Amino acid sequence: MTDKSNLATPEKPRGFIDRTGDQAAAERGIVERVGAVYEQWGFERLDTPAIEYTEALGKFLPDLDRPNEGVFSFQDDERWLSLRYDLTAPLARFVAENFDTLAKPYRRWAAGPVWRNEKPGPGRYREFWQCDADTVGSASSAADAEMIAMACAALEAVGIARGGYQLKISTRKLLDAVLEKIGVPGQANATRLAVLRAIDKFDRLGSQGVEALLGDGRKDESGDFTKGAGLDSVQRAAVLALVTAGAGSRGDVLRRVASIGGEEAIADLRDIDAALTALGVGDAQAQIDPTIVRGLEYYTGAVFEAQLLTKSGASLGAVGGGGRYDDLVARFKGERVPATGFSIGVSRLAAALQAQAETEADGPVVVLVMDQARIGEAMAMAGELRAGGVRAEVYLGASGMKAQLKYADKRSAPVAVIQGGDELAKGVVTLKDLKLGARIAKGLGEDREAYAKAREQVQREVPRGELVAAVREMIGAKDRDT
Amino acid sequence: MTDKSNLATPEKPRGFIDRTGDQAAAERGIVERVGAVYEQWGFERLDTPAIEYTEALGKFLPDLDRPNEGVFSFQDDERWLSLRYDLTAPLARFVAENFDTLAKPYRRWAAGPVWRNEKPGPGRYREFWQCDADTVGSASSAADAEMIAMACAALEAVGIARGGYQLKISTRKLLDAVLEKIGVPGQANATRLAVLRAIDKFDRLGSQGVEALLGDGRKDESGDFTKGAGLDSVQRAAVLALVTAGAGSRGDVLRRVASIGGEEAIADLRDIDAALTALGVGDAQAQIDPTIVRGLEYYTGAVFEAQLLTKSGASLGAVGGGGRYDDLVARFKGERVPATGFSIGVSRLAAALQAQAETEADGPVVVLVMDQARIGEAMAMAGELRAGGVRAEVYLGASGMKAQLKYADKRSAPVAVIQGGDELAKGVVTLKDLKLGARIAKGLGEDREAYAKAREQVQREVPRGELVAAVREMIGAKDRDT
Repeated sequence: MTDKSNLATPEKPRGFIDRTGDQAAAERGIVERVGAVYEQWGFERLDTPAIEYTEALGKFLPDLDRPNEGVFSFQDDERWLSLRYDLTAPLARFVAENFDTLAKPYRRWAAGPVWRNEKPGPGRYREFWQCDADTVGSASSAADAEMIAMACAALEAVGIARGGYQLKISTRKLLDAVLEKIGVPGQANATRLAVLRAIDKFDRLGSQGVEALLGDGRKDESGDFTKGAGLDSVQRAAVLALVTAGAGSRGDVLRRVASIGGEEAIADLRDIDAALTALGVGDAQAQIDPTIVRGLEYYTGAVFEAQLLTKSGASLGAVGGGGRYDDLVARFKGERVPATGFSIGVSRLAAALQAQAETEADGPVVVLVMDQARIGEAMAMAGELRAGGVRAEVYLGASGMKAQLKYADKRSAPVAVIQGGDELAKGVVTLKDLKLGARIAKGLGEDREAYAKAREQVQREVPRGELVAAVREMIGAKDRDT
Repeated sequence: MTDKSNLATPEKPRGFIDRTGDQAAAERGIVERVGAVYEQWGFERLDTPAIEYTEALGKFLPDLDRPNEGVFSFQDDERWLSLRYDLTAPLARFVAENFDTLAKPYRRWAAGPVWRNEKPGPGRYREFWQCDADTVGSASSAADAEMIAMACAALEAVGIARGGYQLKISTRKLLDAVLEKIGVPGQANATRLAVLRAIDKFDRLGSQGVEALLGDGRKDESGDFTKGAGLDSVQRAAVLALVTAGAGSRGDVLRRVASIGGEEAIADLRDIDAALTALGVGDAQAQIDPTIVRGLEYYTGAVFEAQLLTKSGASLGAVGGGGRYDDLVARFKGERVPATGFSIGVSRLAAALQAQAETEADGPVVVLVMDQARIGEAMAMAGELRAGGVRAEVYLGASGMKAQLKYADKRSAPVAVIQGGDELAKGVVTLKDLKLGARIAKGLGEDREAYAKAREQVQREVPRGELVAAVREMIGAKDRDT
């Protein structure tokens, strides 16, 4: 055993992590508590295999960046097998396989690992746990409302107080109605998908960015160009009117979208609203928000997303989502089987819970010093921040940028403020969200959309004049702190 | 959606199953209760990924019957990845990867699915859950004894009373000592493996079958020939003396094997015995049995196996096993890291628990009638069984063999007795263990060795004169019932 030349290397494939003690316990605790809620609501556990025929899973993943379409696949006895990429596609297979013997509506819950063959990155895992509930065989909007209400109960069961989360609701039929009105053909074509993806970026690009993506396209900060949906200005305006119709109570938003049209969509949302009210779910727990579209292609109607909130109500990102997928079982049966479901991203939720818990213990904002000659300007920024109710300090050592960032981390600083030569010339400052960065490094893995958004939010350039407002927003400061 | 020509087929790959309500709950309950015992004994949860580099897992599976060596593998970025086939190989990778930061001895437990790319068969699954505990960094026999005692506690925690299970203990060093004495070279060569596999078949082939496998080889009932280890008669006698040395208390067996030799082996077993006694584990709970060798190639010392017992003390098969694997981490580090562990086969244990629970509700033994002209002989056999204290009946309908077996199943018969023309000519009867058959069909998946043994035990030919004794043994009848 002294010849070390033939030793195996102790390493994991990229994008996979070991979960030890506390982290493993946190994730198991979530599955246990959420599962208990699902059971309480009359869902029965089902464990399907990790491996399915590739053909049985279908292709519904968003934004694929790898040649083999996001799944791990291999051949066995001349047939292709794949590791499941979610728990819904295998459910559709199970229901079709056992259709005649299942009591319908069939209500099942499930928890287990899923795998995505995506480009790994910090915090972007290729294996993560989901914990799902689904109702198959009910076309009623009450089934959607039940999913939303149960998601609220599940989040409260893992210890998130009211006000610490919010469900956002919409339906893909709203957009379909608008697309029909403006002359874009209905089902599953490239333009529709491009519009869906543009809307999905609303909360990180805003109206202007979305409008560019609805039109010819958009070049991002790195210079990468994303081709647009190719809508003309009238069409773009119609889509934007829908997207910006959300805010306020469910009733407010309903009144606003009613004028945009889509009878079926409005009726669905009204029914969901009524059922939620009956289930005791108020506006603070569940809002209607037309910017919610969700990434998976199989949704046909209602879509919803669960977001965790900071104390000031800012979103910490999605920890789960779901919607109605009336055509998924039809892939096997040739006839529509209405279905709806909700999925919690377990590792994602565990990381977000930790982030929410850590908010209390934040250190001061640290203003870095890129050029000792301009330390006065750094002092001024720290002063402004303090005047704006934010704990702040200037880095007073002699080290370079990397060591200063390390210092900020050790101080538990929520934000680092940076103004180098480039920024000075442009009249801006760079804000680095250290808490979000840490969360990304730790475990913001499941939700592909949340990940992409988070990556863009870690570092942000803001006009020098908006420093205090932007920092306050980043740390989720409450108004009364001012 | 009315064109059904392009529909996907709702089916699972062979060897995979869906686990619904009660079955899923039973398996989760086992993980929860066994995990709580492991935690109680100071083990910390660790969840490693399902996917590892193929090279990191190594090749240690027994009796491989597929070209790709028992694991599911696929290429990614030009490197080979595999689904884990157990939880021990990934642990070795984890320990080597984090060696300097781990508190040693490192005590971890884990639970999760593992995958075997083996030829599927009834009840032989390619995906099943294991629940393991391991101590890495202790060479002490007390660590082995702790595993054995904890296995007893775990089995009792899932509801198995004392007397309903037994741990069987041996060490591979015993065999190594004998092999050295008879001139077979020591480590990991083909002869040693052939001897290991021959011994492993002791409880289904008996002394005579094992002796054939130690010598030139053996032809089984189906005519298949298994090549033997090639030992001469003196060598065979030495191995058989070891194999037949077990029975009675740990002290009895120790005295008997002490004369066979292997100082280190005897010292280890003595230390384990003493530690078990200190831990309050009696002879009824844990026996020394030199026929225990376990299938995985990585074991280097103590090996143990947990068996469930019927009320009469007959084995219902292994539900877990483990042992010492001092060289597994060395694959990465180039130096020995002593380690020992125990693994419970979760689905296997769930099925065995159900079988144990069902023993109470058995129907009568059913004697089939292959030829209406000989119904009298069937009547006689049923009479003998009744006189021997066994509930029995003769099939009185007019259908063929298949329908008669179905009838026996519906009657919850534990055993069907069959005597066709062939059997009559040979003076034998065939006994079909319907309970074992049902268990195999349901979930006797995990333990490869238990499976192979069970398959051979489902149907057995016995001399006509031994009918009653053989049936009584099969149903685990107690003597006082006579």
